[in-house]
Amino acid sequence: MGGYAIGVDVGGTTVKLGLFTGEGELISKWEIPTRTENGGENILPDIAASIDEKLAESGIDKKEVMGCGIGVPGPVDSAGVVRRAVNLGWDFFNLEEKATQLFGMHVYGGNDANVAALGEAWKGAAAGYSTSVMVTLGTGIGGGVIINGRIMTGVTGAGGEIGHIHVNDEETIPCNCGNCGCIEQYASATGIARLARERLEKNDDASSLRGIEEVTAKDVFDAVKAGDKVAIEIAERFGKYLGDTLAAIACVINPDVIVLGGGVSKAGDILIGFVEKNFTKNVFHASRGTKFVIASLGNDAGIYGGARMAINGIG
Amino acid sequence: MGGYAIGVDVGGTTVKLGLFTGEGELISKWEIPTRTENGGENILPDIAASIDEKLAESGIDKKEVMGCGIGVPGPVDSAGVVRRAVNLGWDFFNLEEKATQLFGMHVYGGNDANVAALGEAWKGAAAGYSTSVMVTLGTGIGGGVIINGRIMTGVTGAGGEIGHIHVNDEETIPCNCGNCGCIEQYASATGIARLARERLEKNDDASSLRGIEEVTAKDVFDAVKAGDKVAIEIAERFGKYLGDTLAAIACVINPDVIVLGGGVSKAGDILIGFVEKNFTKNVFHASRGTKFVIASLGNDAGIYGGARMAINGIG
Repeated sequence: MGGYAIGVDVGGTTVKLGLFTGEGELISKWEIPTRTENGGENILPDIAASIDEKLAESGIDKKEVMGCGIGVPGPVDSAGVVRRAVNLGWDFFNLEEKATQLFGMHVYGGNDANVAALGEAWKGAAAGYSTSVMVTLGTGIGGGVIINGRIMTGVTGAGGEIGHIHVNDEETIPCNCGNCGCIEQYASATGIARLARERLEKNDDASSLRGIEEVTAKDVFDAVKAGDKVAIEIAERFGKYLGDTLAAIACVINPDVIVLGGGVSKAGDILIGFVEKNFTKNVFHASRGTKFVIASLGNDAGIYGGARMAINGIG
Repeated sequence: MGGYAIGVDVGGTTVKLGLFTGEGELISKWEIPTRTENGGENILPDIAASIDEKLAESGIDKKEVMGCGIGVPGPVDSAGVVRRAVNLGWDFFNLEEKATQLFGMHVYGGNDANVAALGEAWKGAAAGYSTSVMVTLGTGIGGGVIINGRIMTGVTGAGGEIGHIHVNDEETIPCNCGNCGCIEQYASATGIARLARERLEKNDDASSLRGIEEVTAKDVFDAVKAGDKVAIEIAERFGKYLGDTLAAIACVINPDVIVLGGGVSKAGDILIGFVEKNFTKNVFHASRGTKFVIASLGNDAGIYGGARMAINGIG
């Protein structure tokens, strides 16, 4: 293949960048701050300058770079148009067009969770599988569906937005999206902390979690590993919500593999256990062989996915 | 484009066949019985003979035929392997390979609901849209997802098997698939009849449905049109089940359009009303613009989809 590719993952506070060979080897990765002031007008010029600097210091001619793939925290449709990215201060504009002009190379844009899913499908935990679903369990829940090396973008760039699948009619507290009862409200890091709070308030059952001022998802799974019964109950509720939702997704997508990523996934195989049990119970038999794996690229998934978009020339 | 293509839709009692021009014009359609005895061993030879006969009588040389697409009632994976089709008596075998040999032309196989979805996306209610989800509300619920003119097949051929999305933890009666609480148990023709039975048994509220010995889905929607309050309640339950499920699917796929097909869809726009109301309430905002349409090709969707597979040379 030869040449180089650049992957960029734009977050609300930092931009992660990676320089890759055409074969997908990560040569160098670095970060710059995300300047969100004035509608985020500096973000793309800052990235352009940082790429130029890195290429100069690496002695690489821009002509040798196939392109750049960039993931942003918001929907990006198949025409490369960002449809609002609140955390960056961005409204509607053609990201691919503008960045291609500024960077002086072909730029492909995508939603950050989708791009991370592509990274895992390319060089991470889903490598070698044709169809994968990635679920990022962080502050919220992101998702991405990859079929034959391509992101399932959706019509308005909201393909794989599985965090906002409705799972609870009784919910009265709104999700960040405005709806009530999204899976994100129960199975994200924030959601698990909430399940923990609710369970601990329910009665006085002894639990090591009671000694902790603000129980986090990590605390819950640490306590599960230590055999804490209340923590296990909380994890069971989480597993029921997420397992049922993933079973529904598998009925639609029929994937080889489901990748669990994000901060919560650091709990590892114990997490898979709670999810897979409920998944297997309710999934259609033809999808019962779906494998569960923990993401392996960590915070680098986004830059890998970006590079892969550039190498394949796909949005 | 020139040339011809053949679409075949294999059902449990009849096989529908269509001869198309390369541009997708239906020249002739006909049917033969499905002979399911002896493990369905006659089905493919019968189709081969019928195609030969039709080509001879039409004065078309087999060399002018690009190929044949065939939909069957069971999962067909992306390698063209049927993974059991109970209604035909078929077990595992390579449908594409065997039929290609028997028919003397390239054959592409697919699940019948998926192939019908492709037909609607090509020449029916979803024509002109890049991404569509079709839901076939018949005795059971079938489904298909079409992205850029291709069937989302899934790893074991169960892509779009949305009838088996789990929607009710309280269910004790098993679905045909063996699980309990699949959407098919509430929103198919059979499911709606069941919702009607349950509602009528609940109390003595007056309803025109009480005069009918075995209430069907059609009876329910006819009574809804006449303003029957009990029938409206039944339709509301149906709409809640299906609307919520389609909202979840739209969070994953983010389609342009959802096509409602099958016998139940003959109720028309009134059906869409009950579904869309619940869909809109719970779907992620980026998918709120998803359009709902009633399928327009009726029983011909399968032969259209088959021909389209052959013309595009896609499985």
